[in-house]
Amino acid sequence: MTYKVHVLYDGYSKMADEGMVANCTCTLIKGPKHIVVDTMTPWDKEKIITGLGHHGVECSDVHYVVCTHGHSDHTGNNNLFLNAKHIVGFSISCKDLYFIHPFETGEPFIIDEDVKVVPTPGHTLTDVSVLVNTKDKGLVAVTGDLFEREEDITNPSLWQLVAGSDDPEKQQQNRNKIMQIADWIVPGHGPIFRVTEEMKNGAK
Amino acid sequence: MTYKVHVLYDGYSKMADEGMVANCTCTLIKGPKHIVVDTMTPWDKEKIITGLGHHGVECSDVHYVVCTHGHSDHTGNNNLFLNAKHIVGFSISCKDLYFIHPFETGEPFIIDEDVKVVPTPGHTLTDVSVLVNTKDKGLVAVTGDLFEREEDITNPSLWQLVAGSDDPEKQQQNRNKIMQIADWIVPGHGPIFRVTEEMKNGAK
Repeated sequence: MTYKVHVLYDGYSKMADEGMVANCTCTLIKGPKHIVVDTMTPWDKEKIITGLGHHGVECSDVHYVVCTHGHSDHTGNNNLFLNAKHIVGFSISCKDLYFIHPFETGEPFIIDEDVKVVPTPGHTLTDVSVLVNTKDKGLVAVTGDLFEREEDITNPSLWQLVAGSDDPEKQQQNRNKIMQIADWIVPGHGPIFRVTEEMKNGAK
Repeated sequence: MTYKVHVLYDGYSKMADEGMVANCTCTLIKGPKHIVVDTMTPWDKEKIITGLGHHGVECSDVHYVVCTHGHSDHTGNNNLFLNAKHIVGFSISCKDLYFIHPFETGEPFIIDEDVKVVPTPGHTLTDVSVLVNTKDKGLVAVTGDLFEREEDITNPSLWQLVAGSDDPEKQQQNRNKIMQIADWIVPGHGPIFRVTEEMKNGAK
């Protein structure tokens, strides 16, 4: 258990006069493999390079990029990571080679014994989450928009209506699964939060 | 009708030993507004810059980027276009501002009198196509993976099974709509093709 989860930038989403102001939470999973989860809007290239630099990681050191789904605020800077294998939703690729992996049957993609990528559809039909065993925080789930932010657990309209859900029933099932196993959750548009006993009981 | 459609790179998709080798067709729509449709895999940054250069266009000149959907081979280089408004599937954004547009009710997004972006879900639930009036080719539809390539009209397994479809019925309806109105189609993974009378009759 040599992995550590560093949230580089907390995501946000709020209504504005012209529409919605939003960006995703961007996360570095640092360990035997370096993994970046969700690469923000296309305007955040320098922020990501700077954020990684604070942890002694260069873009060329990154082994995996995971975009929890294909929305534009989660995929904007994948071209920083050209030595990495890319997992974007249910697709796994490197250059123009697309590997076959049956996420649609529920099969996790194993990065190593402490990190796996699991299918968690709902927000889109092809969302994934990353599960990481850590020493300091137990099991951390980096979920993208499966969870909008901590407040959506008591206010479901945040993930069902404001963020939008392509399959709310499936999303609820996957939210419950993750709450039952995770100690901490990194959501798509808010800071990391601890999964309380109350949340776990509510998810049964 | 001062627009011209330039396919910068023909897309492809073919089975390989390890999976599938694929990249998208990348298109420049040049005119009063410069529009790039589908930005290839993250490894194609230099190719796109070079391709645009052959037509006297720099990345900073581009007014709109349209990604027909959020798959990783269609969104890889959006961060080249930081002066543009980005349309990725049903979302329209600039920096971290997301504009509200009701693609889900069928509403087109009008760029100007000769160019509009229309919802054509099926391949994913949030695919869009770009319709362009041109002088040399009539109405050109740049459709992304609504059409995999010309051959999928006589061999539907190409778009239904090989490429995959999240809603085949809706995709067939949208394919028919586009074939009825377009003179030429730029598909997601093949060269531009002319819509024949036979295709139009088959789409009624």
